Amino acid sequence: MHQTANGNFSSLRSSPLADLAARRIAIENVEPEIDGGRFAAKAVVGIPMQVSADIFSDGHEVLGAEVRHRADASEPWTVVPLVHQENDRWVAAITFLDIGTHSFTIAAWRNAFGTWQRDAAKKAAAGVLKQVDIDEGLLLAESLLSERPDAADLAARIHQGSDPSEILLGSELADLAATGGPRLDQTLHEHEISVVVDPVIAATGAWYELFPRSCGPDDQTHGTLRDVIDRLDYVRDLGFDVLYFPPIHPIGRAHRKGPNNRLTASATDPGSPYAIGSPDGGHDALHPELGTLEDFDALVEAAEARGLKIALDFAIQCSPDHPWIKDHPEWFDWRPDGTIKYAENPPKRYEDIVNVHFYGQALPDLWFALRDVVLFWIDHGVTIFRVDNPHTKPFPFWEWMIGEVKARHPEAIFLSEAFTRPKVMKRLAKLGFTQSYSYFTWRNTKSELEAYLTELTIETCRHYMRPNFFANTPDINPYYLQENGRAGFQVRFVLAATLTGNYGIYSGYEICEAAPVPGKEEYLDSEKYQLRHRDFDAPGNIKDDVRAINALRHAHPHILEPEQLSFFNAFNPHVLSYGRHDRLTGDLFLFHVNLNAREPQDFEFEVPLWEFGLDDDGAVGVEDVLHGNRFIWQGKMHRLRLDPLERPYAVWRLFSLDEVTA
Amino acid sequence: MHQTANGNFSSLRSSPLADLAARRIAIENVEPEIDGGRFAAKAVVGIPMQVSADIFSDGHEVLGAEVRHRADASEPWTVVPLVHQENDRWVAAITFLDIGTHSFTIAAWRNAFGTWQRDAAKKAAAGVLKQVDIDEGLLLAESLLSERPDAADLAARIHQGSDPSEILLGSELADLAATGGPRLDQTLHEHEISVVVDPVIAATGAWYELFPRSCGPDDQTHGTLRDVIDRLDYVRDLGFDVLYFPPIHPIGRAHRKGPNNRLTASATDPGSPYAIGSPDGGHDALHPELGTLEDFDALVEAAEARGLKIALDFAIQCSPDHPWIKDHPEWFDWRPDGTIKYAENPPKRYEDIVNVHFYGQALPDLWFALRDVVLFWIDHGVTIFRVDNPHTKPFPFWEWMIGEVKARHPEAIFLSEAFTRPKVMKRLAKLGFTQSYSYFTWRNTKSELEAYLTELTIETCRHYMRPNFFANTPDINPYYLQENGRAGFQVRFVLAATLTGNYGIYSGYEICEAAPVPGKEEYLDSEKYQLRHRDFDAPGNIKDDVRAINALRHAHPHILEPEQLSFFNAFNPHVLSYGRHDRLTGDLFLFHVNLNAREPQDFEFEVPLWEFGLDDDGAVGVEDVLHGNRFIWQGKMHRLRLDPLERPYAVWRLFSLDEVTA
Repeated sequence: MHQTANGNFSSLRSSPLADLAARRIAIENVEPEIDGGRFAAKAVVGIPMQVSADIFSDGHEVLGAEVRHRADASEPWTVVPLVHQENDRWVAAITFLDIGTHSFTIAAWRNAFGTWQRDAAKKAAAGVLKQVDIDEGLLLAESLLSERPDAADLAARIHQGSDPSEILLGSELADLAATGGPRLDQTLHEHEISVVVDPVIAATGAWYELFPRSCGPDDQTHGTLRDVIDRLDYVRDLGFDVLYFPPIHPIGRAHRKGPNNRLTASATDPGSPYAIGSPDGGHDALHPELGTLEDFDALVEAAEARGLKIALDFAIQCSPDHPWIKDHPEWFDWRPDGTIKYAENPPKRYEDIVNVHFYGQALPDLWFALRDVVLFWIDHGVTIFRVDNPHTKPFPFWEWMIGEVKARHPEAIFLSEAFTRPKVMKRLAKLGFTQSYSYFTWRNTKSELEAYLTELTIETCRHYMRPNFFANTPDINPYYLQENGRAGFQVRFVLAATLTGNYGIYSGYEICEAAPVPGKEEYLDSEKYQLRHRDFDAPGNIKDDVRAINALRHAHPHILEPEQLSFFNAFNPHVLSYGRHDRLTGDLFLFHVNLNAREPQDFEFEVPLWEFGLDDDGAVGVEDVLHGNRFIWQGKMHRLRLDPLERPYAVWRLFSLDEVTA
Repeated sequence: MHQTANGNFSSLRSSPLADLAARRIAIENVEPEIDGGRFAAKAVVGIPMQVSADIFSDGHEVLGAEVRHRADASEPWTVVPLVHQENDRWVAAITFLDIGTHSFTIAAWRNAFGTWQRDAAKKAAAGVLKQVDIDEGLLLAESLLSERPDAADLAARIHQGSDPSEILLGSELADLAATGGPRLDQTLHEHEISVVVDPVIAATGAWYELFPRSCGPDDQTHGTLRDVIDRLDYVRDLGFDVLYFPPIHPIGRAHRKGPNNRLTASATDPGSPYAIGSPDGGHDALHPELGTLEDFDALVEAAEARGLKIALDFAIQCSPDHPWIKDHPEWFDWRPDGTIKYAENPPKRYEDIVNVHFYGQALPDLWFALRDVVLFWIDHGVTIFRVDNPHTKPFPFWEWMIGEVKARHPEAIFLSEAFTRPKVMKRLAKLGFTQSYSYFTWRNTKSELEAYLTELTIETCRHYMRPNFFANTPDINPYYLQENGRAGFQVRFVLAATLTGNYGIYSGYEICEAAPVPGKEEYLDSEKYQLRHRDFDAPGNIKDDVRAINALRHAHPHILEPEQLSFFNAFNPHVLSYGRHDRLTGDLFLFHVNLNAREPQDFEFEVPLWEFGLDDDGAVGVEDVLHGNRFIWQGKMHRLRLDPLERPYAVWRLFSLDEVTA
């Protein structure tokens, strides 16, 4: 179709036919594109994001394609060429240099000169290239060169000498035509796709959770924010990046819960911090025993000085003493008898908590008020919010509120604490939550872990859902930890910290605290209802493991990118073997974890020599990351024993021997 | 959230917040929805189409949901309730009563009374249902009943007697609330999804292809359309539904091809019918030796009288003698030396054919002209068009042209003859082609067939792509048929005719004609370039198989629906075992095919007793469909021998014994 008219049909007035005709190239199955562009994809500043699409046209013309991206509709596009891989799939990697909302789209076109060149080369090879073919090529080259004043030299050379075919068939014109030159039938993808570009800490944070009120000198003395400042070095020494507190707001008196969730509290019981609000204030106030806003600002500053971020809990429920109930009765549900409606999960009732409702007269004032609570704490230096039970509040509220906040503060991070049905959890991630709690706590076996990580890192949800693997929480004392002793804590720690970029532990984990309410996944004497003072140097603690793994994460942050995870063969049903690639060095970090933390496991495992382009008797360099020993492993099959009494896991850095000899 | 205000926020002026807030319920992953609603799904008139979606809201409220569909935006919606299955998936079956383009969407809402009833029942069971709970229920019931004057009796009964709780907790109000009653937060799916509803013949046609010019009395006499009329009883007796002709238009003289694709033709050689156009006319004319338009009309009428549909070939290329070249030179590509551009696949050239181009000065006149060719033949009673090589013409042209034709003639059927890359084939189906040629001809082994049919019947493409399994074509003389003799023809026939709803054979198949151009998948002495007279009563023909299988298809048309196909276990790598359910009777048609058509195969196979709700020692009634014998099979495992010398396949109708004893 070497038409000289350049696909120009401007004379045809806009009509369904003209609109259709203008979209000659098919651009399909774009990734990342969430629900047809309805939701934004997520990326991390400075880290390449792969864009791919099926791109094809009728016939057999040579095509060109590019990704166009920008942060703002007023900016010019940044353009990155797409490269054809196979089966009509085109791929590019784009890197965003700023946080905030960006957008991208795809353009594709028919490369008329490229098509001529490909066909002419075949004819020349078969000895049937004729003068008329060359004349066609000259016309196309002239059209191409007329748009490229930078190639004036080439334009001149074509007409020197008698036979232009060498230049016509050469790479100089091919290169020009691949990007510039007449683009026939250029077609744009039908959507501009939004991408929320987050700071690095959104994707690779190690979280530590503590109750500030437990930071006092003993079980009887209420801790303060100043006490927390004294704990910062401890947290940082363990290698954490984010320090997260359950709610620190005034706690209600009405129906206050006592220790172990008793329905009655004594005068000295501190109550659940999730019963937010008292005459001392609501969501924008501090519990008086913790200190003042000045103390809080000092804490944030001290944390910042140590490279630690503070994360707060955003829990929307109220105690019956919350000031909003008097000031805004229209934000709550009232019963026919004039009483307020408590939270309930019939037949259970939770009389220390009332829920706001979001519609009726609460819309929009409550929505603004809640957004302003978040903005208030951002003004005090907090950018990370763990959001309590978001799945019991309307989806539209989250989409609106997170959008409002991130438009002003693109560095803001929201962690969705939804433990609920899978589609609800994914919806919250699509709506804008930066991170999501996960089912990790209940995925213990080799097959469960492989299947779940495959879902999270390979399927579509990887484009919008960033798991944060908490190994325990104040609400979840996993049976696995209750039953498997110190080695169990090591196992679950190394899994949480190396299977995903974001993970967390709740204070007490490092000293292997697991005393349960008998038969339940709950902690005995839960810190939710009482102060807890701990000996963090207790024997049998796993702080060395925590330090070592967090150090590995800091030394090699790129291995934490979701797409760098692969599972490998270890021939033992209790042993999980996985690797993380370092795309900067080409190294592979290989992990072996004995999931049966009570018995030693001997096993053969495969060294993934194929990842280094080696065959089955090749050799790679190996560093035992935890001990620093260095070896050369020859051949694919090796044997290892992991004894829980020593350490139930191993971490190896595999590197090409070329690097050593070079 | 038992708010008395009915989610009403009309006081809030339209804003991003209000627009978002109005869409409280998530409706995701709707099927069928092609590329976010960009393309229409396909359905068949009178046959239920399953609609499903993930539907969920925040919290734990009871939801209601429905599909709404209609043929025209001016019509009221037809409403069908969606039913929750599991994991937030809701399902309904909708049936379209007319052909043409319909649309559907989904609505979902929170059922306030249903939620109250569920929770109150839990409280009552736990003995904690209080008066205030009942009062809330009464308020909700009154709101519900105020919208349902048809339930006045119920409204009266609630207030008779002292305790309304029995009625409040009863099924009458539950049923009312499930569909009617206040719908809180009703949310519509963001798209209306188009569905092209085709006639039954679009999905379950048996096609027979012949060259009219070969229907004369011998190899030397050019057949006529009147001769074809004399063949109709033969075609109908074999049980076919569609009779398809390669092009029947005037054939060009310039560069006419001779027998076996020779570059030169003698004066008597008829030429390829795909070189369309001569001084006698173009795409809207008949080749003079075939007869007149009156003959054609008589043929269509005679076919119709026998229940046969005529299908024509729509091949857009032209011979160099086509009248369009003189009348519309702007529709063609011209070279710098003033000559017309022949079709080519460099370095090969096809000098008997020139291609139109579709853009530049050819847009839109050529598009109108081509559409009008199709409309011309529809005016002469043809509604089925097999389209030659659509993948070498612009995608937008097909979308526009098929849309234009089907808007006037929704009964029109277009079969895409694209043998090309998978994504291109699927795109053509999305654009509107009613049926698609497939890779069936090259899928011969058990694993190939199982994988390919799974792709076609289970993956998303089932919603828009209807395969038509041709067992051979004038262009494809499959190696399998060349190598496997009569039994090979039986095998491929029964596969084509029972693995999909649409299938076809090209004349000569029934007498096992397979002489190839040596080493190629082409027929020797191809009918594309010469007349071929055949003895259709030749010994060894498989006409009895053709009649029997076509009779089965006519007797049980519902088993041909794509979703009725399942694969079962036959413990022999050469034996394919599959079933087709009859959703009307509950019967299962079980097929065994020995794919190794040269050697007998003994094998054990599983009787899918589980499909009848039976365990492994249950019993089902069995009819040997080809012989009429009847048995009772007891137990899951049985043994069979399929000998190609007898018949390489078996067909069983399995039925519940309840039916016999009842």
